[in-house]
Amino acid sequence: MNDARVVIIGGSAAGIEAAIAAQRHHKVGGITVIRREEKGGVLVPCGIPYIYGTLGAADKNIMPDALLGNAELVVDEVTSVDRSSQVVTTAGGKTIAYDKLIMTTGSNPIIPRIPGVDTENVFSVKKDIKYLQGLGKALGVAKSVIVIGGGFIGVEFADECRKMGLDVTIVEMMPHCLLLACDEEFCIRAEDALKDRGIKVSTNKTAQSIGSVGKVKYVELSDGERLEADLVILGIGAMPNTELAQKAGLAIGEQRGIKVDEFMRTSDPNILAAGDCAEKVSFFTGKPSGLRLASIATREARLAVINLFETRRSNEGTLGVFATAIGDIGIGVAGLTERAARQEGFDVVIGGAAAVDKHPGSMPGAKELRIKVIFDGKSKRMIGGGACGGATAGETANIMATAIANRMTADQVADMQIGTHPALTASPVVYQLINAADQALVKM
Amino acid sequence: MNDARVVIIGGSAAGIEAAIAAQRHHKVGGITVIRREEKGGVLVPCGIPYIYGTLGAADKNIMPDALLGNAELVVDEVTSVDRSSQVVTTAGGKTIAYDKLIMTTGSNPIIPRIPGVDTENVFSVKKDIKYLQGLGKALGVAKSVIVIGGGFIGVEFADECRKMGLDVTIVEMMPHCLLLACDEEFCIRAEDALKDRGIKVSTNKTAQSIGSVGKVKYVELSDGERLEADLVILGIGAMPNTELAQKAGLAIGEQRGIKVDEFMRTSDPNILAAGDCAEKVSFFTGKPSGLRLASIATREARLAVINLFETRRSNEGTLGVFATAIGDIGIGVAGLTERAARQEGFDVVIGGAAAVDKHPGSMPGAKELRIKVIFDGKSKRMIGGGACGGATAGETANIMATAIANRMTADQVADMQIGTHPALTASPVVYQLINAADQALVKM
Repeated sequence: MNDARVVIIGGSAAGIEAAIAAQRHHKVGGITVIRREEKGGVLVPCGIPYIYGTLGAADKNIMPDALLGNAELVVDEVTSVDRSSQVVTTAGGKTIAYDKLIMTTGSNPIIPRIPGVDTENVFSVKKDIKYLQGLGKALGVAKSVIVIGGGFIGVEFADECRKMGLDVTIVEMMPHCLLLACDEEFCIRAEDALKDRGIKVSTNKTAQSIGSVGKVKYVELSDGERLEADLVILGIGAMPNTELAQKAGLAIGEQRGIKVDEFMRTSDPNILAAGDCAEKVSFFTGKPSGLRLASIATREARLAVINLFETRRSNEGTLGVFATAIGDIGIGVAGLTERAARQEGFDVVIGGAAAVDKHPGSMPGAKELRIKVIFDGKSKRMIGGGACGGATAGETANIMATAIANRMTADQVADMQIGTHPALTASPVVYQLINAADQALVKM
Repeated sequence: MNDARVVIIGGSAAGIEAAIAAQRHHKVGGITVIRREEKGGVLVPCGIPYIYGTLGAADKNIMPDALLGNAELVVDEVTSVDRSSQVVTTAGGKTIAYDKLIMTTGSNPIIPRIPGVDTENVFSVKKDIKYLQGLGKALGVAKSVIVIGGGFIGVEFADECRKMGLDVTIVEMMPHCLLLACDEEFCIRAEDALKDRGIKVSTNKTAQSIGSVGKVKYVELSDGERLEADLVILGIGAMPNTELAQKAGLAIGEQRGIKVDEFMRTSDPNILAAGDCAEKVSFFTGKPSGLRLASIATREARLAVINLFETRRSNEGTLGVFATAIGDIGIGVAGLTERAARQEGFDVVIGGAAAVDKHPGSMPGAKELRIKVIFDGKSKRMIGGGACGGATAGETANIMATAIANRMTADQVADMQIGTHPALTASPVVYQLINAADQALVKM
C-alpha cells in the first residue's frame, strides 16, 4: 500500500482498462477517472458500426460504469495539467492532484479538407453517443449512403448500412479496401463478400468534393464521376488527441502521438500515456507505427499500470492484430503483411493452406478457412499471417499473433500442439496454420 | 533426392499425415502406405460419434485417398517385419522392402471383461466402417442406449444418440464425466449441458455385467442398480496396437506403446512410430503419458517424417489439448488440469475470467466464454488452461496451447497482443485469457 493518487484522463477502452488494472495491481490512496462522457457508460469503440444494422440503438453499445469498480468517476473536461505542482484543472473548475497521471485521451476522426465536408448529412465516426444517435436518425430516412474510406471502419459501416436496406457505395483511394492491414488476396475476398451483399466498391479514387442541395446530394470523385447519395460517412482514420499533452509541454512523436518510452512513460516520468493518443513503435522494425486499435489501447493501459511505480514490463512494440466480419465471413490478420514485409527488406517466405473449419467437411455449417503465413527466411521466424473464413478467424489470428510474439520459427509452428474437434476446428490432418507453416518450411 | 523406400504401416490420421509430410519434405525412391481398409478412404477418427446424430452415414465421415497424393496405396495386412533384411510381409503374400519404416498401427478399443460383454447390441468404438454401419442400423431400431464411459468419446456418442431421439444414460466410474482431461468446474458444465439435453448421467459407478434376452436387456451397475436398455456402447478408452511391433522385437514402453526416442525412432533406428501405437511422454514431467488423440498422432507423424534421415526436430513431449462440443457448447483444454498440476507438485496459481464471446454483450449470438488458467508460481509459467463457451472454445484452447508450449509467463500472457472484433471475440477490455492471467499475476 502506498498513498499515491492515480489520475486517469479519458474513459474509453484504455482509460477503463487502466482503472481496472490499477485496482488489481496497486493498493493506492485513490484512483480517479476524469472523462467528458456523462455517467452511465461509454461507447464500445469497435461496436460503433454495429449500432446501425445489428444492435439497433447506440445505447446498446455501451461499456457500463460498473467496469470502473471502486475508481472515482469525475465527469468533466481536463483543461490543463500543471506538471510542477502535479495538479490537473478541469473546465468545471476542479483541481485534482496526482502522483501518477495516465493520459488516455484517444483520437479524433480525420476530416478531409474537401469542399462540402460541412454539409448536413456528412458524418464522421465520433465517439459521441448523441452525435451517433443523430447519424442513426439520418440513416433511418436515407436511401443511399457513400462511405468514404474502405478501411475496417468504412467496410463495417458499409455492411451495416446495407443491412438497413440502404444503397451503399464505398470510395477507397487505394487499389483495394483493407489494403493497409491485409494482403491483396484477403482484400479481394472481402470485396467479393461486400459485392455479394449488394455493396458497390469504387477503388483507386478519392472524394474531391461533396455537392449539396441543403444537404448531401452527391460526391464528386477524382475521375470526375458524380455518385449521388443522401448521406456521407467519413471513415478515413483518426489522429491522436494530444491537445492537452502538448499544452502541458510533453514530447510528441513522429506519428503525432504522445511520445512514450518502452514503459509507456511520457517525457515526464510521472505521466504515462496509453491508447490512441500514445505514439507506437513496430514490434518488427522499432520504427514509429500509425496503428490504432482498442486492443492495442487496452494492452498499453495494462503496461502503463504495471510500470506505474517501477519499470517492470517493457513494451516490445506493436504487432498489429486486426479482425473484421462481413456478413458471415470473418477475417483476421496478425503482424506484417507480405507487402509490408518486403518493403521492410525481410527475406519473405510464404506458406498457404485452406480447409474447412470443421471435419469432416460434411459437418453442418462447415466453412472454408484459408490461412497465409509469412516468415523471414533468414531467421525462419514467423512475422505475419492472415485467416479468412468464418467465426473462428478472429481467434485464429490470435493464435498467429501469439506465435509471432513468441518469435516462433517455421519449424516450431509446423510442430504446434493443437486440439481439434469435428464441430470446432479443421481436421488435424489438414489444420491450416500448421499446414501453411510446413509448406513454407520446404522453401527455406 | 535419395532413392530410399519409405513404407508406412497404417492409414489413419498418423499414416495419412506421414504420407503427406514425406512427399513434402523428402524426394525419395518411393512411399508406400500399407493399410487394411479398402480403397476409397478411411474413417475420420474424431468424427465417428458424429456419424449417428449429425452426418447420418458412416461414408460421410471419410478421409479420401486423394490425401495420399502420389504415395502408393497397398490394401493388405502386414503380418511381419523382418528387421535384418528390411522387408515387411503381408497376409496377401506380398513382400515389400523398406529403407525407413513408419509404424502408425493405431489403437484398439478396450473391452471390459464383464459378463455379457459379447451379447448382441454391445458395441465398441472400432475404426471399421462396416462395424460402425452395423451400429448405425442397431441404433436406428433401438429406443434406449447406455454409454459405458464418460470420456470425450462417450459424451459425444451420448449427445449424438440423443439427437437421434434415443433415451440415453452415461455410466462413468469417476465422480464426473471428462474428469481425466478437465477440471471439475468444466465437467459440471458439461454434465449440466448433457442433462439439459435429456441425457442421464450416472457417475461413481461401474458396469458389472450386461444382462440379455437374446440381445442387450440391461446393465447391472456396481451399486446393484439395473438400467434397462436395448443397446450398449463401450467408450472406455483404447490400447496401443503393438502386436506387429512386439513380434518384430521392438521395445515397448510403460504405457504399452511402442517405445520411441525424442525423434520418434523406435529401438530400431530404421523404424519410427507415430500416433496411438507410440509411447508418449508428458511435456511437463517427462513421464510416460497415456494421452491418445488424432491431433497428437498427426504431430508425431510430422516429427517422424522430419527426422526420417537426420535428427532435426526433437519432441518436447505431449501437452494434451482436447476439444469437444455438447449441443452448442464448446469446451477446450490445454496442458495440465489443476488437479494434475497439484499431483505433480507444481506451486499452482489459478486465474479465471468470464465474458461474452462477442461485444457488446447485446450482439446477436453472444455466449459466455469462461476461461481458467493454471500457472506454476515458481517459474511463473503457464502450465494449463481451459475454455468453456461456444464455437470459439476450440481455437481458444489452441491459443492457450501455444502459450504453454512457448513457456509463457503470467506477465507475458497478461501482455498478449490480440485482435478483437464485435462479431468474433470478447471485448479487449474483458478478453478472458488476458484477464485470467492478469488475475493470476497478482497472486504470485
